[in-house]
Amino acid sequence: MAVESTVPITGANVVIVGAGFAGIEVARTLGAANIPTVLVDRQNFHLFQPLLYQVATAALSPADIAEPIRKMVRRYSSVEVRLAEVVRIDHPARTVLLSTGESLAYRWLVLAAGATHSYFGHDEWGQVAPGVKTIEDARSVRARLLRSFELAEESRDPVEQRRLMTFGVVGGGPTGVEMAGSIVELARYALAKDFRRINPRSAKVLLFEAGDRILTSFPDSLARYARKQLARLGVEVRTNCPVSDITERWLVADGEKIPMGLAIWAAGVAASPLGATLGVQADKAGRIEVNPDLSVPGMEGVYVAGDLALVRDRQGRALPGLAQVAKQQGAYLGRALVKKIIAGADSAPFVFNNRGNTAIIGRHSAVFDFGWCRVKGWPAWLLWALIHVYLLVGFEHRLLVVAQWVWRYLTYERGARLILEPECSSRSKLK
Amino acid sequence: MAVESTVPITGANVVIVGAGFAGIEVARTLGAANIPTVLVDRQNFHLFQPLLYQVATAALSPADIAEPIRKMVRRYSSVEVRLAEVVRIDHPARTVLLSTGESLAYRWLVLAAGATHSYFGHDEWGQVAPGVKTIEDARSVRARLLRSFELAEESRDPVEQRRLMTFGVVGGGPTGVEMAGSIVELARYALAKDFRRINPRSAKVLLFEAGDRILTSFPDSLARYARKQLARLGVEVRTNCPVSDITERWLVADGEKIPMGLAIWAAGVAASPLGATLGVQADKAGRIEVNPDLSVPGMEGVYVAGDLALVRDRQGRALPGLAQVAKQQGAYLGRALVKKIIAGADSAPFVFNNRGNTAIIGRHSAVFDFGWCRVKGWPAWLLWALIHVYLLVGFEHRLLVVAQWVWRYLTYERGARLILEPECSSRSKLK
Repeated sequence: MAVESTVPITGANVVIVGAGFAGIEVARTLGAANIPTVLVDRQNFHLFQPLLYQVATAALSPADIAEPIRKMVRRYSSVEVRLAEVVRIDHPARTVLLSTGESLAYRWLVLAAGATHSYFGHDEWGQVAPGVKTIEDARSVRARLLRSFELAEESRDPVEQRRLMTFGVVGGGPTGVEMAGSIVELARYALAKDFRRINPRSAKVLLFEAGDRILTSFPDSLARYARKQLARLGVEVRTNCPVSDITERWLVADGEKIPMGLAIWAAGVAASPLGATLGVQADKAGRIEVNPDLSVPGMEGVYVAGDLALVRDRQGRALPGLAQVAKQQGAYLGRALVKKIIAGADSAPFVFNNRGNTAIIGRHSAVFDFGWCRVKGWPAWLLWALIHVYLLVGFEHRLLVVAQWVWRYLTYERGARLILEPECSSRSKLK
Repeated sequence: MAVESTVPITGANVVIVGAGFAGIEVARTLGAANIPTVLVDRQNFHLFQPLLYQVATAALSPADIAEPIRKMVRRYSSVEVRLAEVVRIDHPARTVLLSTGESLAYRWLVLAAGATHSYFGHDEWGQVAPGVKTIEDARSVRARLLRSFELAEESRDPVEQRRLMTFGVVGGGPTGVEMAGSIVELARYALAKDFRRINPRSAKVLLFEAGDRILTSFPDSLARYARKQLARLGVEVRTNCPVSDITERWLVADGEKIPMGLAIWAAGVAASPLGATLGVQADKAGRIEVNPDLSVPGMEGVYVAGDLALVRDRQGRALPGLAQVAKQQGAYLGRALVKKIIAGADSAPFVFNNRGNTAIIGRHSAVFDFGWCRVKGWPAWLLWALIHVYLLVGFEHRLLVVAQWVWRYLTYERGARLILEPECSSRSKLK
């Protein structure tokens, strides 16, 4: 796509790839210290991914959880932003080549390019079982979910109607649990009275987990509670149930072929393919094994943070791909780089400070694990909401999200029920 | 696309094509009278088009001005909704064939399919100069506007930067005036401090009008005021300046080739092509000449309302394509059909009751023409805002739009600065 650039090389000190939770923290910390920095991202906005499932289920609009990157680093005059993809990293030459043709020189490089879906070698599933990692993903899920009800209303065949109103969520982690709960509530409440020939309340949501329990990152008691709550909502949870095939019309789980309107992928995660281009040690998911200070072994001046980094805690367990992990790594790395650049000093290793692991199941129901304390039910639900609002960037987003949540809570409606698929794919879905 | 249907024909009494301002009013009135009705639309939502320019300029999100059609007619159990395109109207057989293969039988047919852009025979301009009629249009304008600033920031060539920060709006009607004012305010305030190499404040907006004045549907004094206000904001208004060519990189106006980053089309409007399929008398813009009761001459039981209808006032002037005209026609037609269906009686002709013609120019500046009274400046601006909020459908939309307007008013920010183009076209724009 890009050819060798004739554009002069920028004399940036630090180049950061990715403006997610990790990258933005690094950029802000460096900016506050007035260190010349270029922040590169494929999108012009930072995305609050933990609430993306609410966009996918018509509860929020994309702009409610997205903030322009330029606005976030506006006050730091030493930070420049580039809207571009990274084509190649040439570490010997210390340059990053962008899709725009520009070549960025770096003294320090921070890779925080995040993660994408992994369909475990079945990339063809990506077309039929969208995940929930980007706004495009979320809009695609939203459009397909809503369209499935439309097609069911159109159909006169009860078997076809049942198929179209069956939804499968693959993966029993927090994202899968949140999606499943949210789809049921969409069907039960917001859509309940909007159709004449189908009854959306009879929609069926199945949650498939290959392992023997859901929410493996939570204590067993909370996972059991979540499972009970999902069942109460009407989600059929199937554990020990690996999915072996997915098409537009059905899914095969544990050998059983189950007709469905839409499968949603919340199972595998793979680190950004950018990591592999470095040619260093990575795990199965593509995460780069970094030193305790997040530097890449054998590549002086290169650091990795966020979902792309494989960082272990004191017990040797890999830290999970969570916003709080990425954020803390970004803040740590920003401070460490400032120390190194300004004082030439090294920093103590990164230590993750667990602020609590959480998943929301539905109205009045969530789980929260602080390690020393476990909360479930409506206190966890309230806590979940307060913390997510607090973590949102910017007062306006908080205001809008709270207003909408309160409105949804009172009315059971969903405000963003728009079927808007990219032109190219919508035709095929309509047919 | 569609083949002859094997689906049984629905025994609907009234079929309404289009759920815009006219169609939705007809449907609600018929629903309240419990008359079997099918409402067909290509989209699953009703769009509040008068605020679409705010989506195009990143001030509002699509969901803020769109309401699910099903939700709007939820309470009327006699009203069914279909998400489909109309393939063919077979009036002798009294059926409407849908893209889903379904064939809807009708006794009465209401065509309220609205209008689209007309590029005056230059359909190729559609690719380079998007209009503002649909959410997809608005998102495309938003993405291209914002990307133009990104490309300018990337460029090192002052001439190219100037080109990329020049925007042309074609058409001096209310939409053109509103777009031009809103783009200037976006550049002057929201984007002002977000770039390092370009100064968005220096962005240039030109408004091209082929006629000798802007806002021809307004009294001359208000049009002159609007022009002065636009100039004060920094919009260069060029009247008597027909546009003869548009490409991705420049536009030819009155013989002058003007390099620009993006041209936006706010000039020609053409009635939905569905009107032409009826084979009846239509004007140059494709509007169908209807009888004073909105019925189509020579087609018993067929009515047209909204932008697709050519209706004349007592002075013989065609009514403009405004939301209030469509809304009043829809309400009239709904009542007339109820009277006809239930009592077999005819209604007095439709009379348009002008509630005031308005256009907003920018902060504290708008024009309002009530016929008997003219308002301009901040009273008109406040009135514009109050009336638009009042006209929005649903309390939640009002709440969210007001919250965002107040926020924008206080901070000068724009909350929805997302570059999200449909996959298929974004590649070509990036290159």
